[in-house]
Amino acid sequence: MTAKNRRILFRTRPRGWVGEDDMELAEAPMPAPGKGELLVRNLYLSLDPYMRGMMDDRKSYATPLQPGDPMSGRIVGEVAESNHPDYQPGEYVFAMGRWEEYSVLTGAEDMRKLDPALAPLSWNLGVLGAPGLTAYVGMAHLLGAPEEGQQVYVSAAAGGVGQVASQLAKLHGARVVGSAGDDAKAAFLTGQLGLDAAFNYKRYDSYRAALTEHMPDGLDFYFDNVGGEALDAALAVANPFARFAECGMVSQYNLSEPYGLTNLTQVNRMRITMQGFIVRDHYDLLPGYLAQMADWLKAGKVKYVEDLTAGLENAPAAFVRMLKGEKFGKQVVQIAEP
Amino acid sequence: MTAKNRRILFRTRPRGWVGEDDMELAEAPMPAPGKGELLVRNLYLSLDPYMRGMMDDRKSYATPLQPGDPMSGRIVGEVAESNHPDYQPGEYVFAMGRWEEYSVLTGAEDMRKLDPALAPLSWNLGVLGAPGLTAYVGMAHLLGAPEEGQQVYVSAAAGGVGQVASQLAKLHGARVVGSAGDDAKAAFLTGQLGLDAAFNYKRYDSYRAALTEHMPDGLDFYFDNVGGEALDAALAVANPFARFAECGMVSQYNLSEPYGLTNLTQVNRMRITMQGFIVRDHYDLLPGYLAQMADWLKAGKVKYVEDLTAGLENAPAAFVRMLKGEKFGKQVVQIAEP
Repeated sequence: MTAKNRRILFRTRPRGWVGEDDMELAEAPMPAPGKGELLVRNLYLSLDPYMRGMMDDRKSYATPLQPGDPMSGRIVGEVAESNHPDYQPGEYVFAMGRWEEYSVLTGAEDMRKLDPALAPLSWNLGVLGAPGLTAYVGMAHLLGAPEEGQQVYVSAAAGGVGQVASQLAKLHGARVVGSAGDDAKAAFLTGQLGLDAAFNYKRYDSYRAALTEHMPDGLDFYFDNVGGEALDAALAVANPFARFAECGMVSQYNLSEPYGLTNLTQVNRMRITMQGFIVRDHYDLLPGYLAQMADWLKAGKVKYVEDLTAGLENAPAAFVRMLKGEKFGKQVVQIAEP
Repeated sequence: MTAKNRRILFRTRPRGWVGEDDMELAEAPMPAPGKGELLVRNLYLSLDPYMRGMMDDRKSYATPLQPGDPMSGRIVGEVAESNHPDYQPGEYVFAMGRWEEYSVLTGAEDMRKLDPALAPLSWNLGVLGAPGLTAYVGMAHLLGAPEEGQQVYVSAAAGGVGQVASQLAKLHGARVVGSAGDDAKAAFLTGQLGLDAAFNYKRYDSYRAALTEHMPDGLDFYFDNVGGEALDAALAVANPFARFAECGMVSQYNLSEPYGLTNLTQVNRMRITMQGFIVRDHYDLLPGYLAQMADWLKAGKVKYVEDLTAGLENAPAAFVRMLKGEKFGKQVVQIAEP
């Protein structure tokens, strides 16, 4: 055990694009758990687009970060010391934690125990965790699932949420089109995940042009990870009674001037239902989801690709690259060896 | 019975604001009903914002009008001749008809018989017709009703749909704020309809400023008749789990460049449900709605204001003035005396 605890702090509130320099590596004394608390040795840190929102100072579901705060995020760790009756040293846990090597937690941080035999521990940050549940909530629960033969579009389809959402739509018999930000991701979507079509949006003049080409029968269900121009284009090609699951709008998080959507009249004209959601409101669904998804993974019906970045010190750079779409698969930072 | 049938034709497809000259008065021979058909003497014509959409040449729920077509609209009329077994001369009917003095109809035009003893016949085009049902679908049915004490905003609240929607929200115990385009309408909303607050949006720098002043506790339910800037402002002040009933976007129908909405990220952040709807999809609810609303009207729990324009020839001007917000209450053209 090191004497110091390395952590990443939030340094400056970004205006527009977040940069690595908006975060900084710092050292703190090794913390000690108090009465009823645990010390967790963090192994894996999840990088997710929602974190960008916490860097802004606006009314939101999450309390905004203040400069000097440690960056927060979902972690998988091993209990190192415990004064908590429910957790023993050596057990693996998931928690809403911080970007640091060791964390003192109370057990109230959405904490749950993990079974290391079920799947690689890091998958609990992805397909067997909040991103997977996010996909399930949006693609199967809140608005119902796509119907057989319906036209489904998933943006950022190669990401941690997108790849699960895309495959769920395929399992429901839909025709699924995915978009991503480079050719390799698009090839992965059709080649590995079995999507019916995929495109690199950077190769088109507009999302509208790409969707018109790849969705000649219109759009019945949109799983939106991107917002902005992608959302506006999806509205333009929507069929009557289309459903829009609004999971996130990563294209907008780093803009000082947000994109102005001009196709909202389609919501009325096409009787679109658009629903925004946040996975934290739906954690009660997690046990059922995990049981189902573990079966699908075992049977090979769902595939999962993650991208591990080694070293806590590399987390800020990996975070920025993820937001820029330069990474492939679910982004996880490995802080320590299990 | 005159030998000629006066009618209003759609003349030119407007770019931007519709003008009276985009329609024209014409005379046609008096039509005669064929086998199974009826001849209806039209008494009242409803003017509704949705009609503006039919003048555009784009994918929509209604078939676009073609230049030379008679303008279409909801009418109340008296059966003049009938070759239809279900209708007798002298009966009053509602139908999806045309802007003309006499219409030959088949009985399939959403036609229903009207009880002239229940309320003024013209009310079947408003509170006891599609506009009233529209308010009910959006304010009570599709997304559920506002809860007691919730903060509700209704735009174009003095209009045919808005005044019913506002009063339904009050009946559910909500705090209701309405907006309109002049001081007299705003005074009517608080004075006559009992809304908790109302504002003339033209007196404010922005809808955002007006909503911030009149909804200090945020917004839980928005009944949107306006779209554009009003919708963007409602998004900005929305509370978590706010519901947006998207009834229409009259502010956008006459723009060649639609307003660009920049607050869509609120849909995700605040877990907003936004649902577009069209009353035609919900006509099965009409009998139940009419029974309930007739009781409320009789008990004085709902008030209703209409504005009658005399003469078919004045319909185009009244239509344009309604879209510009220069009219007050539900707009109806009286084509003939009952």
